[in-house]
Order: sequence, then C-alpha cells, then structure tokens
Amino acid sequence: MCFYRYKLILAYDGYDYQGFQAQEGAKTIEGELNIALKKWLKEDIKIVGSGRTDKEVHANGQVIHFDLKNKIEPLGVKRALNSFLPIDIRIKDAVIVDNDFHARFSAKQKEYRYKINYKEEDVFSYRYAPYIPNLDLDAMIAASKLFIGTHNFKGFCSAEIDPRKDCNKTIFDIKTKIDEKYIVFSFIGNGFLKYQVRRMMGILIDIGQHKCDQSKIQLVLEKKDPRLSHRVAPGCGLTLYEVKY
Amino acid sequence: MCFYRYKLILAYDGYDYQGFQAQEGAKTIEGELNIALKKWLKEDIKIVGSGRTDKEVHANGQVIHFDLKNKIEPLGVKRALNSFLPIDIRIKDAVIVDNDFHARFSAKQKEYRYKINYKEEDVFSYRYAPYIPNLDLDAMIAASKLFIGTHNFKGFCSAEIDPRKDCNKTIFDIKTKIDEKYIVFSFIGNGFLKYQVRRMMGILIDIGQHKCDQSKIQLVLEKKDPRLSHRVAPGCGLTLYEVKY
Repeated sequence: MCFYRYKLILAYDGYDYQGFQAQEGAKTIEGELNIALKKWLKEDIKIVGSGRTDKEVHANGQVIHFDLKNKIEPLGVKRALNSFLPIDIRIKDAVIVDNDFHARFSAKQKEYRYKINYKEEDVFSYRYAPYIPNLDLDAMIAASKLFIGTHNFKGFCSAEIDPRKDCNKTIFDIKTKIDEKYIVFSFIGNGFLKYQVRRMMGILIDIGQHKCDQSKIQLVLEKKDPRLSHRVAPGCGLTLYEVKY
Repeated sequence: MCFYRYKLILAYDGYDYQGFQAQEGAKTIEGELNIALKKWLKEDIKIVGSGRTDKEVHANGQVIHFDLKNKIEPLGVKRALNSFLPIDIRIKDAVIVDNDFHARFSAKQKEYRYKINYKEEDVFSYRYAPYIPNLDLDAMIAASKLFIGTHNFKGFCSAEIDPRKDCNKTIFDIKTKIDEKYIVFSFIGNGFLKYQVRRMMGILIDIGQHKCDQSKIQLVLEKKDPRLSHRVAPGCGLTLYEVKY
C-alpha cells in the first residue's frame, strides 16, 4: 500500500500533562495529538514517538512519525495541526521522510536537559526549573563527568523495568551551563532508560547538598540496584531537547 | 485597639487565575491569600491590595497589607504564608509598617510591564508573553511616547467604569526593551485605570501592524470614548511590576 510518512518535530510545556503516552482519562501529549489529527482528517491516525516523556516533562524537540494516504504539503500539516492543538503543544517542523524512517528505532542520539533554579523561588520559572537551594554546583559538575561513557545504567532506571531489558547505554557528553540563577545539565547519549536522567540528577542533587559524594555514583553503577538511586529529581526540570537521526 | 500592620510584597503567575479580586467560586489571588491566612491563623484576616489585576495578569511586586493582633516576626509571616500558598503565588517580602500605611491609598507610583513575543511561537513563554508577529517595533515605540504626561485616559478605560470616576492620570515614563525575541514596554505612572495598559497596548499593537497610526492615540485621548480603543491586549502579557510608596 502506498503511503506518505511524515516526520514532525514538536515542543510542549508538559507541566499540565500526565506524560507523552496516551492513557484513558488522562491529559497526555499523545492524546492531544490523536484528538487534533482526528479533528483535522476525520480518521484515526496512529502516531509513533521517539520515546515517552514522563508526567510534567517538557520537550523542545520531540519527534513523531505517522503515515497519510494522501500527500499533503508538510507546511500545511504543520499549520493544520497547530490550529487544532492546544497552545502548549506546538509543531515546529514537518517533513516527508522515507517510508522506513522510524521515530523511535531510527534515532541515533538524544539530548535531555535538566534545569535547576538554585537562586530564589520564582513564580515565572517554577514550571520549567524547580527551585533547589544550597547546592555545591562545582561538586555536581565534577561528579556528573562519571556518567560519561558506556555503562549498565540499571541502577538509575525505574525499578518496574522488564528485567530482560538491555540497560547498557552510552552517554557521549554532559555539558553544563551556569548563569546567575540557573544551572542546566545537558545529557547527550544514544538513548536513555525510564527515569534515568531524573535519577542521575537525583544523585547529583544529593552530591550538591553534600548528602553523599561521587563514590555513590560508582556504587550504583556497580551494584545496578535502583533502590540505591531513590531520589528522582522533579519531572518539570527535564526537557527532551533534541533527537538526532 | 492595638494592632500590627504588615506590608507584604508578592509575586504571582496569574495565568491560571480569574484575577486578583476574590470572587465566589473562582480561583483568585485574593481568594488563595484568604485561604492561606485562615489555614495559618485559624481566623479571617481582611487583606487590602494596592489594586486589582485582571484575569491572567501577573505580578512581580503586588503589595498588600493586613493587621494582626499579635506581633509576629515578619520573616515568620513570609515563611508561614508561603508554606500554605500554592507554588504560583509567593510572598517575596514582609515588613511591619506604620498603622496608617495603606496598600492602595498610600501608593505613589506603579510600574506595569507588557511583554510580547514577536519572533515565533514558544510553548515555554506563551503564559507570560503572547505571540504577536509582524510588528513594526519602531512605530510602536515612537507612538508609545504620546502617552507620557498627564491625560484624561477615559478613552483607554473599561467602558463599565463609574462615569463620575476621575480619569486623569499621569504617566511619568514609558521605557522599552527589545531583544531578539521579546519587546517589553514599561509604563511608570501615578496610577492606572481598569484595562488602561491593555487598551494602550491594543492600540500600539494596531500601530505595529499598520492598522492605524499615531493619530489614533490623539483621537482617543481627545474623544475620551472607550469604544475607539476596542482592542484589549491579552491579559497574560501584563505584569504589575512594582508599587512605590
């Protein structure tokens, strides 16, 4: 059967959503995309995302794909969907791709960013950067480097994960940016497990508050036990920044 | 009767609120303050604000006052209230003031800021800066200067206003700040009428879109007819930035 595959890049403010994945009775990003597609095309279109984002987690560059029987100009797709989507979900770009492109399986690299407001409470940024005071930023930055490389990240992953799942992931780089109010950690890797970035950030926050030191990271990597990385940093600090193919 | 008068400075993200003023069955800033005071002190405390802000309008430096029978350390007042208030309303400062201080009547100067995203839609700023493209920013800035000075602003005020109300107000200065994404207009005056800043911004937006020119401002000031300034800029772009006493 002949079809046209569309790749879309989208951004969302996830604070008021129960995550990416559609769930009966919950406000989700995928759910809103399904509703918008149905309103527009009067039929159910199955979408595939590059990965799920949790409750409250944002995206600057989430990627989805779906197939249409008829060819529609990509700019028309973008405009039509944006007219049906809520203001906190925006299609940034749409292109037609090869039929074998897959938003999830073709992904080569992902970047997640975690933003913390370390300065003072702020009603205009709490949705995007949780306020966490009294952090030793230098200690956090130094410790973050231990995550770089290929590791079994089972100890930093959701405890509910399928025990057969391959937890070996590579983090190519971790960059940090500090200004007078925020610190942002950028994690660039070939893929991330459920809760992985938030659990890595949880330990970095503990290190920043001098509740533990760098050796904790080595311990969790070694023991591969998620109970050791119990602090999960708030979802709202996390943004799926970019997916590369 | 002996009492202690407290002056509080507060910030709020007004996007999810029906405005400052308490209303039966609506989520309001004053309503949340009343609830927090009641939870804390187990009694009803009457608060007085420097002025009302509309639905969706934010504050960086709203001021309120209230009286307590017992003396409580101001820092304790701030902390207690913040522990009972939702995260999008924060007490920034609390002090004890003279008994004749009045949040509304003692105010000498107010600053309102209006922020527009003129560049591209952005899910992380739509709550604080409406997206309004294709603006001639230079024309807007030049026209804004016509508002400076003492004028009868009846033509820029809510049509529902009491006809006996004194509509003479002085705008001391209007400053603008532009970066690659936003333009911010700061209006500094001795007081503002209901909808005044949003209606002034409405005409400035019309001028920026070349739907009218500067002469429209002079016409509305002259005719004093609010029907002539029918475009009310979105509430979410407006912030009560500071009140001076």
